[in-house]
Amino acid sequence: MIIDCHGHYTTAPKELQAFRNAQIDGNDNPGPLNISDDQIAETIRNGQLKMQQDRGSDLTIFSPRAAGMGHHIGTAKTSEIWSTLCNDLIHRVVKLFPKNFIGVCQLPQSPGVAPANCIKELERCVKELGFVGCNLNPDPSGGKWIDPPMTDKKWWYPIYEKMVELDVPAMVHVSMSCNPNFHTTGAHYINGDTTAFMQFIMSDIFKDFPTLKFIIPHGGGAVPYHWGRYRGLAQDQKRAPFSELVLKNVFFDTCVYHQPGIDLLTKVIPIDNILFASEMIGAVRGIDPETGHHFDDTKRYVDKAPISAADKQKIFEANARKVYPRLTAQLAKQG
Amino acid sequence: MIIDCHGHYTTAPKELQAFRNAQIDGNDNPGPLNISDDQIAETIRNGQLKMQQDRGSDLTIFSPRAAGMGHHIGTAKTSEIWSTLCNDLIHRVVKLFPKNFIGVCQLPQSPGVAPANCIKELERCVKELGFVGCNLNPDPSGGKWIDPPMTDKKWWYPIYEKMVELDVPAMVHVSMSCNPNFHTTGAHYINGDTTAFMQFIMSDIFKDFPTLKFIIPHGGGAVPYHWGRYRGLAQDQKRAPFSELVLKNVFFDTCVYHQPGIDLLTKVIPIDNILFASEMIGAVRGIDPETGHHFDDTKRYVDKAPISAADKQKIFEANARKVYPRLTAQLAKQG
Repeated sequence: MIIDCHGHYTTAPKELQAFRNAQIDGNDNPGPLNISDDQIAETIRNGQLKMQQDRGSDLTIFSPRAAGMGHHIGTAKTSEIWSTLCNDLIHRVVKLFPKNFIGVCQLPQSPGVAPANCIKELERCVKELGFVGCNLNPDPSGGKWIDPPMTDKKWWYPIYEKMVELDVPAMVHVSMSCNPNFHTTGAHYINGDTTAFMQFIMSDIFKDFPTLKFIIPHGGGAVPYHWGRYRGLAQDQKRAPFSELVLKNVFFDTCVYHQPGIDLLTKVIPIDNILFASEMIGAVRGIDPETGHHFDDTKRYVDKAPISAADKQKIFEANARKVYPRLTAQLAKQG
Repeated sequence: MIIDCHGHYTTAPKELQAFRNAQIDGNDNPGPLNISDDQIAETIRNGQLKMQQDRGSDLTIFSPRAAGMGHHIGTAKTSEIWSTLCNDLIHRVVKLFPKNFIGVCQLPQSPGVAPANCIKELERCVKELGFVGCNLNPDPSGGKWIDPPMTDKKWWYPIYEKMVELDVPAMVHVSMSCNPNFHTTGAHYINGDTTAFMQFIMSDIFKDFPTLKFIIPHGGGAVPYHWGRYRGLAQDQKRAPFSELVLKNVFFDTCVYHQPGIDLLTKVIPIDNILFASEMIGAVRGIDPETGHHFDDTKRYVDKAPISAADKQKIFEANARKVYPRLTAQLAKQG
C-alpha cells in the first residue's frame, strides 16, 4: 500500500469559499453550508482520487486546505466555526471514499490565544470522526510570528499533552501569509518548516514528551539541504546527537518537487524519518518541462531514488503506520 | 586565486562590543573607539588569515559581523554611527592585509526608514574606502518583517539605483533576530535567503535593473533544495524562465556545511551562478565528527564535488570577479 501523508481538500465545492468570504466580511456564522454528497464525490473523483489512480498511490491522509485555515482571520470563535465546518467536510470525504482517504483535522487556533483552546476540536475529530492526526500552525498570525515559539511550555504544552494522550501526531503547517514579505507557498511554508525544526533542536520538548510526534512537511523546509549546519549548530550548543534529540519524534515528508531534492533527502535523513507525500493539487500544479511529468508527482522521484526496495516500502507505507499509530486500526474500521 | 566571498569580522577586539553595548544602553555616540592596529592585526592573524592559510584560500570579501548589524536597535542615527564605525574597522583590516581582504560594507538601515538613507554611506565606502559591495538586510526589524518587500519600488529602488551606478552587488543578509520564534543563524538567516529569492521571482525587479546583482548567501537558503518547487511556482504564474528572470542577477554562495548539500547546489544551480564562500568563524564553528574537519571548511566540499576543474575555477574565482565588477581593479590598487 502506498500512503500519501500530505493531502488537502483544495478542490472543495465553491460553496465552501462563499461561506468563508462571508466570515471574512464579518459574519462569523453565515448559516448552514449546503454541499451535497454528489458534489463532494464529484470533486474527489475528478481530483484527488483520479490523481491517486493515475499516479499509483492508495491512501491519502487528508485534511482541509492549509492556506485556507487562515487562523489570523477574525477571532477564536470565527476560527472554531470555520475549523469545525472544514473538518466535517473532510469527514464526509472519508465516509464517501473510506478506502482512499483518512482524516486529519485543522485546529481552531487564533493569534494571541493559547492552543489549549483546540483541545476540544482535536478530541472531537479523533474520537468521533476517526481522524488520525492534526495540522498545527506554528504561526497563527499568518506571517507576523507574534505568538510564542512551539517550545513554550505554558503556551503549547497543553495541546501536546492531548496529542500524546490521543496518540496522534501533528503536521507542522502554516497557513496563508498576510505579510507581504512572505509568499505563502514559496516562502512562508518553507520558512515555517525550517523555523519549527530549529526550535525543536534547541529545546527539551522531546525530553518532556518522549512520544510526541511531528511531521515537518515540504521535505523539512531547508533542513535536509543544511543538515550539516543543523548538526553543527546543535553540537556547538552541546545538544545531544540528533538520534536522541529529535529523530524519534520528527519526520520529514517527500514534498520536494525535483529528483535531486529527493535524492538529497533520502541520502541525508534516516529512512525511518521519511514519509511519502505529494501535497497534490496543491502549491505547484504544472508539468515540469524537464521531465514531462507533474512537479508534484513525487512518487516518481522516490521510485527513482537510489535506495533499496525495503527502504522505499518504509517511506511509502511502514513509516506512516508508525507515525500515525491510529491509522491501521482506523483503516480496518473504514473497511 | 581562491576568493571567499562571504566573511565577517567576527573576531573584532572586545572594545567594539563595549561601544555597541553603550549604544544599546541608549548612548548613540559613546565616544571614539580605541583599537590599535596591533590589536586588529592580532585578531586577523590568529583568526581569518590563519584560516585562509590553513584551508588554502587567498582572498576574503570581508564585511562587519552580520548578526552585529542589529538594524533594529535604536534609531537611524544609532545605525549610522554604528555602521560608519564598523565599516571603518573593515577598512583598517584591508589596509593592514591588502592582499588577503577586500571590503564590503554594512548599511545604516533602520526599520521604518526607507533604505535611501543608506546611499551616502554606500558611496563613501565604495568611493573613499575602496569597498566592492554591500550587505543589504531584507528585514531591518530583526525578525518582525514589518517593512516592505525588497521589490517595493518606492522603498527600495533608490538604493538599487545607487548600486547600479556604482556597479556594486549586494549580499542579501539579515542580522540578529529579536523574534523568539527565529533562531538567528538556524532559522532567520535561512528564511531571509528563501524569502528574498521568492520576492525576486515574483517581481520585475531585474527588468527594471538589468545589471543589478544580488548574492543570496547560505547556499541560497532553501532554494536549491526546492528548485523544482520554485521553477514550478514561477511557471504556474506565467513568469519567464529562470535564465531570463533571475539568473543574470542572482547568485548563490557555497555556505552549505556538508558534502551532499554542496553536491546538490552544484548539480541544480548553473555553475555561473555559484560563488565560493565559507562564512568562516561564523555560525558553525565546530568540527564535524563524521569528517574530522570543520563544518564550515567548505573548500573541501567544493574540491570533492563531481564537477570539472574549469567549473571549480569559476566557483572559486571567475564568478566572483564578474559579480563584483570592482574587485579586480581594487585588488590591483591594493597591490
